[in-house]
Amino acid sequence: MAAHYHERVQRAQAEMARQDVDALVIGVGSDLIYFAGYPVHPSSRPTLLLIPKTGEAQLMVPVLEAPRVKTLGIPFALVAWSETDNPTEMAAHILRAGGAQHIAAGDELWARWLVRIQNYYPEAQWSNGGAIVRELRMRKDAAEIEAMTEASHRTDAAWQEYVGSVRFAGLTERHAIDLLVPILEKHGLVTHGGICASGPNSASPHHSTGERIIQTGDAVVFDFGGTYAHYHSDIARMVHVGEPSDEYRTVYDVVLRANMAAFDAVKPGVQCQNVDKAARDLITAAGYGEYFIHRVGHGLGLDIHEEPYLVSGNALTLEEGMTFSDEPGIYMPGKFGVRIEDACVCLATGGMKLNEAPRELLVVE
Amino acid sequence: MAAHYHERVQRAQAEMARQDVDALVIGVGSDLIYFAGYPVHPSSRPTLLLIPKTGEAQLMVPVLEAPRVKTLGIPFALVAWSETDNPTEMAAHILRAGGAQHIAAGDELWARWLVRIQNYYPEAQWSNGGAIVRELRMRKDAAEIEAMTEASHRTDAAWQEYVGSVRFAGLTERHAIDLLVPILEKHGLVTHGGICASGPNSASPHHSTGERIIQTGDAVVFDFGGTYAHYHSDIARMVHVGEPSDEYRTVYDVVLRANMAAFDAVKPGVQCQNVDKAARDLITAAGYGEYFIHRVGHGLGLDIHEEPYLVSGNALTLEEGMTFSDEPGIYMPGKFGVRIEDACVCLATGGMKLNEAPRELLVVE
Repeated sequence: MAAHYHERVQRAQAEMARQDVDALVIGVGSDLIYFAGYPVHPSSRPTLLLIPKTGEAQLMVPVLEAPRVKTLGIPFALVAWSETDNPTEMAAHILRAGGAQHIAAGDELWARWLVRIQNYYPEAQWSNGGAIVRELRMRKDAAEIEAMTEASHRTDAAWQEYVGSVRFAGLTERHAIDLLVPILEKHGLVTHGGICASGPNSASPHHSTGERIIQTGDAVVFDFGGTYAHYHSDIARMVHVGEPSDEYRTVYDVVLRANMAAFDAVKPGVQCQNVDKAARDLITAAGYGEYFIHRVGHGLGLDIHEEPYLVSGNALTLEEGMTFSDEPGIYMPGKFGVRIEDACVCLATGGMKLNEAPRELLVVE
Repeated sequence: MAAHYHERVQRAQAEMARQDVDALVIGVGSDLIYFAGYPVHPSSRPTLLLIPKTGEAQLMVPVLEAPRVKTLGIPFALVAWSETDNPTEMAAHILRAGGAQHIAAGDELWARWLVRIQNYYPEAQWSNGGAIVRELRMRKDAAEIEAMTEASHRTDAAWQEYVGSVRFAGLTERHAIDLLVPILEKHGLVTHGGICASGPNSASPHHSTGERIIQTGDAVVFDFGGTYAHYHSDIARMVHVGEPSDEYRTVYDVVLRANMAAFDAVKPGVQCQNVDKAARDLITAAGYGEYFIHRVGHGLGLDIHEEPYLVSGNALTLEEGMTFSDEPGIYMPGKFGVRIEDACVCLATGGMKLNEAPRELLVVE
């Protein structure tokens, strides 16, 4: 992987040159995983990656962490700061000594460190590192697409195992999720759970899984995922407990066709907003436009929500390697909601779905 | 709880007046839980709490979250920003309109939001909000001590149930932790696991739980905890698989006495470094000084590591309501390590241990 990280830093440096940025300061979080494959919890001891416009990147870590970092084979200069050092003053010194005037701060860098660096080096001008990193992260390379495919396929397998083994009627929403989580874990995913929204709760796209008991006659949305090698899956599938109404069958069919319409619109050069529009036009033509109350999708990768956003007003054009969710929904207040979500990647030839779990209307007990 | 949050904001305002700070900007994280009882994941939509030096605090939330926030009874003005608003520009406008010139940024505020606010309001001077919030958070009120006591007692109960039910020899370290986690959860704790370090691995205080198989003859350190009502427990206990050596018995006894020596030193007015010294002197006198390679403790609360740090060089004096770990250790390279850790609170009369799980040398199978 060292070559990957080296190449990603070079791409960042090219983007920095384009944006006239002299240095990029990254804190812990998904950007640090992207550039260095180094997952670490934020703590009272700062870890900082300093990327100059030209030359070698420097990774500053607490001396306690240095032995572990050395085993990761990260191709950057390692600066191990000790308990008596002042790491933010050191970072300011490195930036000043490198002649950096315009510095970009990574999105997840804590103010705790940024304000100190700023106050040790008040002459510098600061901007958002997101503007640089986004340009890189939103186009996935082959290794990233492989990790995301693996995450999605494992999620599919877990879902199949789950729906084949659970009797839903009588479970609380929370219990239904508690049964799903260990199956996701068994399939090698790291997960913090998911959403189960049953009956009228399914009509709220942001429902918090709760104590409602799933009953015969309920539509139930499951929206969940996990990470594999730090990359997220994100899927939504429905079950209907007992025979559904004609209205549910109609709405389900419209959402499924909208999911495919959005997917069929995916191609390099297409504006993000037109993927949203493809699903929205179909739902509107079917008479349910006012019940599709959110964007059709969001970028997916090291973060659950990232660029590109497939939303009205976003004229960004899709490119090869972009990965995102395709998740139209129709929400009938007080009755039920339907959402069908897959992770997708934009290839040269068009979209490819990363999720393959069946999307047919599923009637369960 | 609304009265608690109101009072905490007032204490922050008093501290801001003392430090000549006009406004405090808090992002999501433990500070937001402290001031508003509002736990939320950082996301691409900012949530910001703006506390002016005088007057009412304002909580800015994405409009999607507003219905949920209203149910929390937070005693602040709610500013629900919509998808077409620019929330960081709004925050800059509120700060400027309030006449804030010197603004403090909460420790966990993301650079993603801070840099934008700074660039919309370039005349402001920024400092670290940690300097204000630390003064409040490091002295726990009764409600906080109650939550921490509950977290610790539940952790004790989980440990007792665990050691009474597990056969250690033959388990991998990871499997040993995997058996502990559901017991912690059953006791109502939210946990992300813990450390199990067996045999020679126990001699590394920062060992990452791994695939080593626990064997007869091993010393095994467990260092773990969880949160209850967002407050952390943090405990370390040992088991020895089969009969221990005389050396282990000696070292165990020294660490146990050092744990009590540090605890006995706890009293309002005592410098933090002198709690460390109490344990260190005892261990040094026993001939093991060079093997006690870390500080004796760290503050504990909404974060696992926070002020006050019980470490050489820290002249901060203990006060009533401060909570911290007491965790001396002796690490014999290549052989074994011993660490015994309890959470403690400083009361007017001296220390009180929050953990009550037995500390006697424990021989298991």
